[in-house]
Amino acid sequence: MSGFFLVKMERKIKIIKDDKYPCDVACFENLNLTLESGYKLNELKIAFKTYGNLNKNKSNAILICHALTADQFVADEHPITKKDGWWQHMIGSNKPIDTNKYFVICSNVLGGCIGTTGPKEINIKNNKIYGLDFPSITIKDIVKVQKLLIESLNIEKLYCVIGASMGAMQVLQWVIDYPKNIMNIIHIAGALKHSPQNIAFHEVGRQAITSDSKWHKGDYLNKYEKPERGLAVARMIAHITYLSEEALYRKFGRKLQSKDLISFGFDADFQVESYLRYQGQSFVDRFDANSYLYLTRAMDYFDVSKIFPKLIQFNGEDNEHIHHCIISFTSDWLFPTNENKEIVKILNKFGRKVSFTEIITDKGHDSFLLDEPELFDTISGFLEGNYEE
Amino acid sequence: MSGFFLVKMERKIKIIKDDKYPCDVACFENLNLTLESGYKLNELKIAFKTYGNLNKNKSNAILICHALTADQFVADEHPITKKDGWWQHMIGSNKPIDTNKYFVICSNVLGGCIGTTGPKEINIKNNKIYGLDFPSITIKDIVKVQKLLIESLNIEKLYCVIGASMGAMQVLQWVIDYPKNIMNIIHIAGALKHSPQNIAFHEVGRQAITSDSKWHKGDYLNKYEKPERGLAVARMIAHITYLSEEALYRKFGRKLQSKDLISFGFDADFQVESYLRYQGQSFVDRFDANSYLYLTRAMDYFDVSKIFPKLIQFNGEDNEHIHHCIISFTSDWLFPTNENKEIVKILNKFGRKVSFTEIITDKGHDSFLLDEPELFDTISGFLEGNYEE
Repeated sequence: MSGFFLVKMERKIKIIKDDKYPCDVACFENLNLTLESGYKLNELKIAFKTYGNLNKNKSNAILICHALTADQFVADEHPITKKDGWWQHMIGSNKPIDTNKYFVICSNVLGGCIGTTGPKEINIKNNKIYGLDFPSITIKDIVKVQKLLIESLNIEKLYCVIGASMGAMQVLQWVIDYPKNIMNIIHIAGALKHSPQNIAFHEVGRQAITSDSKWHKGDYLNKYEKPERGLAVARMIAHITYLSEEALYRKFGRKLQSKDLISFGFDADFQVESYLRYQGQSFVDRFDANSYLYLTRAMDYFDVSKIFPKLIQFNGEDNEHIHHCIISFTSDWLFPTNENKEIVKILNKFGRKVSFTEIITDKGHDSFLLDEPELFDTISGFLEGNYEE
Repeated sequence: MSGFFLVKMERKIKIIKDDKYPCDVACFENLNLTLESGYKLNELKIAFKTYGNLNKNKSNAILICHALTADQFVADEHPITKKDGWWQHMIGSNKPIDTNKYFVICSNVLGGCIGTTGPKEINIKNNKIYGLDFPSITIKDIVKVQKLLIESLNIEKLYCVIGASMGAMQVLQWVIDYPKNIMNIIHIAGALKHSPQNIAFHEVGRQAITSDSKWHKGDYLNKYEKPERGLAVARMIAHITYLSEEALYRKFGRKLQSKDLISFGFDADFQVESYLRYQGQSFVDRFDANSYLYLTRAMDYFDVSKIFPKLIQFNGEDNEHIHHCIISFTSDWLFPTNENKEIVKILNKFGRKVSFTEIITDKGHDSFLLDEPELFDTISGFLEGNYEE
């Protein structure tokens, strides 16, 4: 995508180059978009990246929904960290999601911090940084905004929606809210609802952020400082949950950092400590603390365990055509296999098209980000098997 | 225990009533006690409680080793919280550990904060609060100090040493360092070494404390403020690990706090959030942040996985007489059954007397603190079965 064009609808939309990040931004005005909380969003920016080309039939578009702390830089260098995109091994020419064939779209979620409207952006109503004036958001709101983007790109029907973790929540929400606009979905390491243990870990992360005296009740950007220590602690907590105990043993065990003996002090004696500190510190350079609050909250609120079975049961005309691919990882204790299977059971119960793969790995929840050949094969196979140009 | 007496040894010891808490304190002077780090401790106070009476043969003494955040008030009202002792249902007249029969001793660990020498006490060397000048301590040091207390009470041989979690580490250390001075041990929910995942959770807790601007590099008591927010976050993290996912589902599920609808904000919408906040807040009233740093570190350093098998194999004359009772809980993911079984395997391999019980419960690591009839039966049965007056 490049350049500048206007889509003639009642809403005013323009797509421009972002002035900060190497990506496009869809800018909406006079939107009057009602969020689940009742808040009305009038202005909206959606920062997004695309890869490959949309075919004539517009039948090859794949939407990638990113996880909690990822962003639209899914398959090229990240502008802040200068590292590879978070799914660079998955998406590209001749890769499992082949950009010679598919047109891949990934947008930064509503409430995010890499260009899409979120708590660190300016509230046009009063020309001030939103901070905690930003409205509470839900996964439903995030997907509603993605739907606006897809419309503004003049795509009627997505070939596939793919996401893992918080991305998987968005995938389910697409099935619920816009079944007519999708053909296939790939749901990786998710659940029908966020578990109390996961809410608990998120809550501790939020407490770590809001306990930091530099958080200033969310107004830190106006005070020219950031709750970096609190955000780092939040990231460290979360990071433990992304790994499995086996992976921690294999990767670090009780290995010491750089000496043969313990220091009898509070330096990072163990490699696992040093690793976590690094994870915390590097995170604060690329992520906004308030975004972390809003997005973890959106995940906590996610619960489609009652609505999903009903919709599948009664809305056959809308959703019968969808092919579902559900993937879980054996060592994922954040979104374990049994929670993914709940979705499969419901789809099976009502005769829907669903395939399920549990991938055997000791790498925990983060397996979806790693070089996992069975994941590659499952995704590329599913996409090819269902594709008709 | 009451009153005041002197034990004639080369060291000067007196046992007095504590001036702050309703317990006794053994005060040691001219101690010259070398800790594992090499630091020499010259003055030492050990705050302790006793229940029941020592019999004439001095053959009925049981030492209780407390866990990370517990203390000597094991079977009576806690002086700060005014709540029951942490094992009040376990220890007392006609209870599983029957004080009509046994003489029960529980001391606050070295580095603790309820009267025993630790980072919040005065360093007699310079008349200042220790803070981070307090030496790094290990489980071996904690047990060394317990041994001094037992000696000062003129007890040659303990009938049993009992402990869970960090207490279980101390129990193993007694077997390693003072096998001739113990008859039986009960080791509950422990391990031969602290796992990398457990180190990781501890490290995040420590980071939460040291990130609090009110921590003042450990010198907060001289600044008349405390890193309460950081300590509360550390407690919240740890508390999640003490429960099982099943327990969280059963106890809280996704139940909301006091309303039917979510607030679309950052208040404690979910009961599990409110519960954790309460756990964090109430903890800071009774615990010292620096103590938390030192004691978590002592646990992290614990690793007897190499030394324990060798000692059991080669020191038969010293330890062959010990009866071992090892207990684990099915839903404990902090010190899971397989880690407890490692100890059983070693003891079996060298023909030692060992019984093992895995208790089926969904209450997680904290099961040892709860009203768990099978735990009561196992402990009382083991104690009775081995007792000879």
